[in-house]
Amino acid sequence: MSRTTTLLDRAGPGDRAPAGRRFTTSATVDGRFTTSDECLAWLAEQREIQAYSVERVPFDQLAGWHFAPDTGNLMHHTGRFFTIEGLEVQLNPFRVPSWTQPIIVQREIGILGILVKEFDGVLHCLMQAKMEPGNRNLVQLSPTVQATRSNYTRVHKGRTIPYLEYFTAPRSGRVIADSLQSEQGGWFLHKRNRNIVVETDEDVEVLPGFRWMTVAQVQRMLRLDDVVNMDARTVLSIMPFERPETTTGGLDPFRAALLRSLDPEAPTQHTVTEAISWLTENKARFELHQRRIPLLDTAGWHRTADEIAHVSGGYFSIVGVDVRARDREVGAWMQPLLRPAAPGRLVLLTRQINGVLHVLLQARPAAGALDIVEAAPTVHCTPQTFRTLPTAHRPQFLDYVLDTPERQVRFDTWLSEEGGRFLHALNRYQIIEVEEQFPTTPPPNFMWLGVHQLMTLLQFGNCLNVEARSLLACLHTLW
Amino acid sequence: MSRTTTLLDRAGPGDRAPAGRRFTTSATVDGRFTTSDECLAWLAEQREIQAYSVERVPFDQLAGWHFAPDTGNLMHHTGRFFTIEGLEVQLNPFRVPSWTQPIIVQREIGILGILVKEFDGVLHCLMQAKMEPGNRNLVQLSPTVQATRSNYTRVHKGRTIPYLEYFTAPRSGRVIADSLQSEQGGWFLHKRNRNIVVETDEDVEVLPGFRWMTVAQVQRMLRLDDVVNMDARTVLSIMPFERPETTTGGLDPFRAALLRSLDPEAPTQHTVTEAISWLTENKARFELHQRRIPLLDTAGWHRTADEIAHVSGGYFSIVGVDVRARDREVGAWMQPLLRPAAPGRLVLLTRQINGVLHVLLQARPAAGALDIVEAAPTVHCTPQTFRTLPTAHRPQFLDYVLDTPERQVRFDTWLSEEGGRFLHALNRYQIIEVEEQFPTTPPPNFMWLGVHQLMTLLQFGNCLNVEARSLLACLHTLW
Repeated sequence: MSRTTTLLDRAGPGDRAPAGRRFTTSATVDGRFTTSDECLAWLAEQREIQAYSVERVPFDQLAGWHFAPDTGNLMHHTGRFFTIEGLEVQLNPFRVPSWTQPIIVQREIGILGILVKEFDGVLHCLMQAKMEPGNRNLVQLSPTVQATRSNYTRVHKGRTIPYLEYFTAPRSGRVIADSLQSEQGGWFLHKRNRNIVVETDEDVEVLPGFRWMTVAQVQRMLRLDDVVNMDARTVLSIMPFERPETTTGGLDPFRAALLRSLDPEAPTQHTVTEAISWLTENKARFELHQRRIPLLDTAGWHRTADEIAHVSGGYFSIVGVDVRARDREVGAWMQPLLRPAAPGRLVLLTRQINGVLHVLLQARPAAGALDIVEAAPTVHCTPQTFRTLPTAHRPQFLDYVLDTPERQVRFDTWLSEEGGRFLHALNRYQIIEVEEQFPTTPPPNFMWLGVHQLMTLLQFGNCLNVEARSLLACLHTLW
Repeated sequence: MSRTTTLLDRAGPGDRAPAGRRFTTSATVDGRFTTSDECLAWLAEQREIQAYSVERVPFDQLAGWHFAPDTGNLMHHTGRFFTIEGLEVQLNPFRVPSWTQPIIVQREIGILGILVKEFDGVLHCLMQAKMEPGNRNLVQLSPTVQATRSNYTRVHKGRTIPYLEYFTAPRSGRVIADSLQSEQGGWFLHKRNRNIVVETDEDVEVLPGFRWMTVAQVQRMLRLDDVVNMDARTVLSIMPFERPETTTGGLDPFRAALLRSLDPEAPTQHTVTEAISWLTENKARFELHQRRIPLLDTAGWHRTADEIAHVSGGYFSIVGVDVRARDREVGAWMQPLLRPAAPGRLVLLTRQINGVLHVLLQARPAAGALDIVEAAPTVHCTPQTFRTLPTAHRPQFLDYVLDTPERQVRFDTWLSEEGGRFLHALNRYQIIEVEEQFPTTPPPNFMWLGVHQLMTLLQFGNCLNVEARSLLACLHTLW
């Protein structure tokens, strides 16, 4: 029997049939693409058609944007979209008890929505080939709708957002998952987006730049470097995947343990109540004070004609870009982007406990977090920052990960963060299976959890950070 | 068979036995008190022993507190506890699109904990007779521990907090529920406390001012005016109550429907996924901008020698009190309190849908909310504010509630809000059963939910506001 992993949709016999039933990657490939190469060719074609160019520009040529004279905050002349401001952070206990930094302030809640529809018994996702100026390769696979509130309430005065009507109430489709989820807490202040999956049975016109793809097809793309964008990954992570209707007999032990871990009845080291208590304990343990300050007052950060950067050259810088399409009708604009100084490493350690795959999460505070702490990947850092620090100051498990032999690495892909805000923010995502002698009792800010438990936490938002959600989406590609 | 209502503790066979098993009010009364009068007599005796007096004092006599010269913010000389600052609020859509007001800022997370232990097969709660200066009757039934972070990290330099060791890690007991829950969003900025229930099987010394009581005894006290304090109510609300082992045959239809609604298998109008989507929709619908401003800059508010009040005389005022015990050793201090101008009305409308009791919740934004919107009681307002306004501007269902005949009122009690921060903040809490012809399809900012669904939402925090949690605790007294 097929089972949904969505605990909460099993609330009672009055409920509709579990939404997860058909979210399975074991389905026959039945989309518009029959091979991954076809999809890649389509993305390349879209790059040609959209023909965007992105060039760095100094701030004084960044049309529409200016530094407020009193604060030095970088803002749009409409006062909307987002601003680059200063943030004063006090965090205790932490390696650095207080600091100031630039931060992206974007309090409005946007929509990241995937429209799904069944064709021949298999659910398909309506995916978009979307250009984002911060992507190295510009066009990546994106959700059906990826819109800020300014976008969808038409501050841009541009065209309407295609398919938006499926994601705002009153809507005709059926909501399968819908929650607020956070984004990069080190770079954004309190940023969340609405992650939403809606199923329709209407006829849907497929506009240029959009394609129906099965979940399995999207997942195959996710195993390739830099194809599936962050927004698509986070929406994929909240889909109520089920344990597919296969036996675990012929599978290798890792895949078998992963399949078992999707089963809500699978035994786990802790209960969900214990997981919530662990997050609560860590939220109460860390004291995080955040104060917005003028960007001019960020100590150690300096502004030149074309960047705002840290004196050390580390962390990140703020730069401006000029975005143009060959066809001006398609669009042209300028905007600031945040450019990380070095790539990050995001690793999920996994292990079998009683034959069920568990992943090791970290309760990790972040400068711009709305709720102090979220569950993060086991390793979540920029290795370059720690290159010269003694072991005691290096993130837990970083050295373990750097020394892991290839045979334990189950997933290893370079993926981009949000190209609408970050310039070339490439991170290396890895899923590693630890060896049997690895300790099952981690430090108190870590916890081993089953995959179905993560999916329960995800339903509520504010529990897993965006990097952990990306890794969960990656983990689902390993069935 | 007895069933727990805690969905999430049923995560898998590897989990421990459901914690809810013995949280039942049908148990034999077996505590230290055999009658409610005994408990009331004990509280009266505690009032005599503790012998506190509370008197209003002008601000210039409020020892330890001062107005910061540049901002006019009211603060303690240590910079801790809490401050009274200004808040600028923009809320859209709302009757009043923007305003400024004083707000209590207390970002640190305190502990509200109840220690439970089984005696003769029945769980007992260790309750405290605690004085809070803002309570009309000073001493009320409180949780085992009710401590701010400043308290328990000893900023007070006072005595240690009894029983604190059960609630901070590493602890010897077993955590039964543990989540961050919000407090009054109109009066506090982003305030949450850790609500925690811990079970022990150790011998526990019962200190003066503490007593073991069964849940049923505490619930009987909750039906009386002004006996069980807010902190006790919110912790009671997160206890994983189960459907007791009785049949619904001999019960009146309301009680039978309530018992059915505790059963996680009971059919409900919506799924939990739909409930989360409804909250998400409303969080995305309301744009809430909060900005801390100097208290001096709150328009329409003026400061006299002994209060900060609104020119209209409405809303609330900030005052100072001098708290003294007859025995100075016991304690003496001064502090500001927020004094509401008029009592509030907090009403839960309930109805049977397919024989299962549902309650009507409102997605309600609040000035100081951390996350824009929480689920609130059906009616949550200060009726005096709306006395002279035309119907179109009056809260939905307020007029319905004011006209409800007595026979539909299932619960009607005056209860105090947090006496450590509010002076005589008495609210009238009501649970009303609507008549059969009442519409089952409410306006889009309302939703009918089953009781077991509320308990699932409660496990995660940030879903139900403190008034809704109080009413849920009250509803549990009606089995």
